[in-house]
Amino acid sequence: MANPIYNRKDRASVNTLRLLAVDMVETAKSGHPGLPLGASPLLYVLWTRFLRRDPGCPNWPNRDRFILSPGHGSALLYALLCVCGYGLTINDLKEFRRLGSKTPGHPERDVTPGVEATTGPLGHGFAMGVGLAMGERAMGERFNRPDFPLFDHFVYGLVSDGDLMEGVVAEAASLAGTLALGKLIYLYDDNHMTIEGATDLAFAEDVRARFLAYGWQVIVVADGEDLVSLHLAIENAKANLEKPSLIICRTILGAGSPKANTPKAHGEPLGPEALAKTREFYGYGDKPPYFIDERVANNFTDRVKAFEPYRLKWEETLSLYQTAYPEEAQELNRRLAQKLPDLGPSLDFPAGAMATRVASGLALNDLAKKLPEIIGGSADLGPSNKTELTGLGSFLPLTPAGRNVHFGVREEAMGAAVNGLALYGGLRPYGATFLSFVDFLRPAIRLAALMRLKSIFILTHDSLGVGEDGPTHQPVEQLASLRIIPNLTVLRPADAFETAALWPVALKIDGPVAFILSRQDLPVLRPEEYPAVLTGPAKGGYVLADPEAEPQAIIIATGSEVSLALAVQKLLAGQKRIRVVSLPSWEIFAAQSQSYRDEVLPPGLTKRLSVEAGLSFGWERYVGQNGQSVSVEEFGRAGQAAAVFAEFGFTPEKVAARLLGLFA
Amino acid sequence: MANPIYNRKDRASVNTLRLLAVDMVETAKSGHPGLPLGASPLLYVLWTRFLRRDPGCPNWPNRDRFILSPGHGSALLYALLCVCGYGLTINDLKEFRRLGSKTPGHPERDVTPGVEATTGPLGHGFAMGVGLAMGERAMGERFNRPDFPLFDHFVYGLVSDGDLMEGVVAEAASLAGTLALGKLIYLYDDNHMTIEGATDLAFAEDVRARFLAYGWQVIVVADGEDLVSLHLAIENAKANLEKPSLIICRTILGAGSPKANTPKAHGEPLGPEALAKTREFYGYGDKPPYFIDERVANNFTDRVKAFEPYRLKWEETLSLYQTAYPEEAQELNRRLAQKLPDLGPSLDFPAGAMATRVASGLALNDLAKKLPEIIGGSADLGPSNKTELTGLGSFLPLTPAGRNVHFGVREEAMGAAVNGLALYGGLRPYGATFLSFVDFLRPAIRLAALMRLKSIFILTHDSLGVGEDGPTHQPVEQLASLRIIPNLTVLRPADAFETAALWPVALKIDGPVAFILSRQDLPVLRPEEYPAVLTGPAKGGYVLADPEAEPQAIIIATGSEVSLALAVQKLLAGQKRIRVVSLPSWEIFAAQSQSYRDEVLPPGLTKRLSVEAGLSFGWERYVGQNGQSVSVEEFGRAGQAAAVFAEFGFTPEKVAARLLGLFA
Repeated sequence: MANPIYNRKDRASVNTLRLLAVDMVETAKSGHPGLPLGASPLLYVLWTRFLRRDPGCPNWPNRDRFILSPGHGSALLYALLCVCGYGLTINDLKEFRRLGSKTPGHPERDVTPGVEATTGPLGHGFAMGVGLAMGERAMGERFNRPDFPLFDHFVYGLVSDGDLMEGVVAEAASLAGTLALGKLIYLYDDNHMTIEGATDLAFAEDVRARFLAYGWQVIVVADGEDLVSLHLAIENAKANLEKPSLIICRTILGAGSPKANTPKAHGEPLGPEALAKTREFYGYGDKPPYFIDERVANNFTDRVKAFEPYRLKWEETLSLYQTAYPEEAQELNRRLAQKLPDLGPSLDFPAGAMATRVASGLALNDLAKKLPEIIGGSADLGPSNKTELTGLGSFLPLTPAGRNVHFGVREEAMGAAVNGLALYGGLRPYGATFLSFVDFLRPAIRLAALMRLKSIFILTHDSLGVGEDGPTHQPVEQLASLRIIPNLTVLRPADAFETAALWPVALKIDGPVAFILSRQDLPVLRPEEYPAVLTGPAKGGYVLADPEAEPQAIIIATGSEVSLALAVQKLLAGQKRIRVVSLPSWEIFAAQSQSYRDEVLPPGLTKRLSVEAGLSFGWERYVGQNGQSVSVEEFGRAGQAAAVFAEFGFTPEKVAARLLGLFA
Repeated sequence: MANPIYNRKDRASVNTLRLLAVDMVETAKSGHPGLPLGASPLLYVLWTRFLRRDPGCPNWPNRDRFILSPGHGSALLYALLCVCGYGLTINDLKEFRRLGSKTPGHPERDVTPGVEATTGPLGHGFAMGVGLAMGERAMGERFNRPDFPLFDHFVYGLVSDGDLMEGVVAEAASLAGTLALGKLIYLYDDNHMTIEGATDLAFAEDVRARFLAYGWQVIVVADGEDLVSLHLAIENAKANLEKPSLIICRTILGAGSPKANTPKAHGEPLGPEALAKTREFYGYGDKPPYFIDERVANNFTDRVKAFEPYRLKWEETLSLYQTAYPEEAQELNRRLAQKLPDLGPSLDFPAGAMATRVASGLALNDLAKKLPEIIGGSADLGPSNKTELTGLGSFLPLTPAGRNVHFGVREEAMGAAVNGLALYGGLRPYGATFLSFVDFLRPAIRLAALMRLKSIFILTHDSLGVGEDGPTHQPVEQLASLRIIPNLTVLRPADAFETAALWPVALKIDGPVAFILSRQDLPVLRPEEYPAVLTGPAKGGYVLADPEAEPQAIIIATGSEVSLALAVQKLLAGQKRIRVVSLPSWEIFAAQSQSYRDEVLPPGLTKRLSVEAGLSFGWERYVGQNGQSVSVEEFGRAGQAAAVFAEFGFTPEKVAARLLGLFA
């Protein structure tokens, strides 16, 4: 194989990217010039010689994906999107970091065409890319047929030392190695410089040896300016389909600027003087800002154009596929369009008691049979979370059709990989752990919420009911911690029927969802006695049980505390007329009409008691100033669940006393 | 060196630990038999031959530390504490996992003598141990003198595959390698089994190679039953003071039980039948539960007794030290007793504007000069967080006296290491990052809160004021997310004076503290104009500025929004009489007397407006049902800070309109 040829036109193109990026930072008076100056050669080679994408069709399903994990290098990405024809104009570049522009400070998926994922919190780009590569494999395994390689692309990314220091990257890299994700290729912008100084102040490890230990292929490019070596490295990475590849590229932070190789080059404009010197260094000393040589402009256009046939060929393949495999094609179209088929009737549950985690597992398994797009797993708690898809196999290198992902004890990478799977298209991913450990994946949930990804998080063992495992495992503040995340829908069903009713609701929500489920058995609310249990949950909150005459007080409860509320209603039946409202989702209830909400919680009925085994924080909005909350305001304690509940006041007698207190 | 001798008495002792642990799980009908059965030989060798501790003096400052990172193996730890004389009786063991017992489900530092740290959330024990080893070095460097090795011990721990999969461990291990923490020695309970099945389902990496890449010494013990090999491995680990050591010990989950080497052995009682077989396997088939052979009991007593001279010798050394180095001794005593000297006057600030992160940096530097126990750093954002201690050097292998820790881009390990430093004694550690990234270290903050550790977290760039970096970097829900953590005190000062006033307050609080600081400049509230700024902050909330006549409405604000509130007060001066309340800490304010709180927020004054650039969630408790909140209820946007603030209604005019709305 002859070496690839790179010439002066290529060099000029690389330098144009550099200068566009630093010009943007200068205009914005804010941003990060150091990364673009150092890493432009890496992305130039990748974007002009390898990245099979089509600016005219930026969401083509079989495109190569590209993730800029160090999102602070956004100026370089925007410069690329501009010269490659993704619809960003020079004017857009001049609006860099301005309110309402198409070029925000960090890449945002919904704002800029060609941006695959919102990045900025270090490590998550890397880890979402692992999810994208899992998506490629899962979709390819389901839909590819001989001569019909519908899903057959690579996932590329740029990653930084900041990414590689983050724990989520360690988790994701180990997972990618275990899964042998050979289509994943990351270029490491190894510039030996961090904000506090030389990288080895804090990061003395041997990155190459570490990634080899994870089961990756590692390729070293000694000089990040060497376009031919970069090209050959990417070729070698592509050739190894058995292992993910890390290409370590030695670069210089702020290369070509007077601040090169110092932390000062990282995160602030160069300033007019240093910028002038940088422009001179790259041979454009006599040119104005945002200058693009015609030859350079044409070079980008030509190079990008050369990838178009891949998309056209794919469209042709898809068209033939529709004839050859009509059923698969139909399923593919449905899944890519995010349409749900008829899900059939909800599950029935016998009278008795069942943990909502168990009911959720039954509902999930039922849905997974009808929806082949469902894929997911747990952070090594599958048997406890009840998230195992029976009979659907494990998603492993030798069994890529399996739909149970073993994420390992890696909650944060699980969250990020679920986000990557959701970004991929055609899949409905979920991830599970104990509610108490949701703190570990919070950064992933925030990104899911920011992008409104349809990621589903299943969080079991949701309260003091965890019992013996004690305060480290008993959630107290976690429910509130999720309710406060914008765009996230939190669901805490009261029993098996509510759980089954909420699963289809969850699948239809345009954003991430968190199921909050009990470890312990809860009484099954049979529809004969509680007809509202079938239709009420979809409204987020509803009247579960009313007294015969007009109610004098309301108990508002969620999850396991709903049956406690019913017990109190019965206990006080002779004394007080109590309405029991089940409020499985604050977000869905808040989205109902004012009149519906007033029907459930009549403004005049101010004697209200919330009962939830978690903080009262935020409950004021439902109980009002005359109401009260039965809640948990401190960390829990180890003990048998019943004893712990009693200790914190969660018995019918104690709650009844609190309710009667409202009348005192 | 002759090989150590282990005989039948040792073997019987190991098996006694095993059976005590499984008996406890059986009595509790809950718990984890698998780890104790597999790892008892490891801890037997460590505790009887190496661990220099004294049960009669469990907090002796120079004791070897031991961390059980997989806290679910607590039964083994309690069995050890019982037979080693830490005051746990057989009755305590029988109360395992019962409410109020000394033997809770997971080890809790404040409940059980001899437990160094609360563990359970995997990975954090490992990472806190790194902080302990940093503590040993920092204290040794400060206080040791020739012939006076006051701090000269090892930090040991047991770690599991679950720990090693966690990102926080990857971060902490890389940090420990960079810092060359040669006193840190972990035994890895390598049992090849997880809850979902064989470890390699999710964890196929080469752990040995990974830790070598981090710069650790790695020693492999092929058979975890081989007491002599375990002994030699620990000796070799101790001999290498240049590198932390990982001793990989091949063990069998649930060894000796019929469920050995299956996930079923992990987390539930063996059941009577399997337990009987296990007892038989270990040669105690004819013995009752909780049986301890007299020979075994004496063996433990003798072995533990053999470590006592180390403590006695240390007391003697300390006593001589007090004569030889009276000043150092005085400082040491003060620091170990957690006493603060007189901190002198608070800083003065000129009129003008200053970001609270800058004021905090000045106050921190001022205090660090007076308090040599202050040590800390940032997750590679020191220059932005303003947390660098000028002139006090970097804490690095060759400069161990440095007090600036470079944690690297490892927020979660930073949090855990800060916790470890706080656990160590004699140190006041802090860790810093952007508020938006506090999600990454939330699990560490929760553990700090659970243990009431004096960890200080400095979180800057606290709102939309971050501006151009956009929604990934703009906190919205983070303030609320911290206020809901029990035992955590959140401080959001309004200006430089409030910041300086709150630092000494923070140092005196008996639990973790989170400072929330602005990136942008804020008007300095000079005491001539606002006298309350000097004394009010210590009460958590106070009247900053009152109108001349009785107020008609209150604006309650925190942080950067306090000066906005003052601007509104002035803007409406002719129309409405407005009280401005600054509320830098909800927790401290809530701890004031009802009469003081009513003075600040008179119950009759119900026209209240909260102004805070974050969620309104929770503010109901201050503004009441007639009040309103100027808040941010969705994710932020990239743009210049002023433009973004205006977009969300944070201008004097818009807030004034909201206030007037209260009168409509």
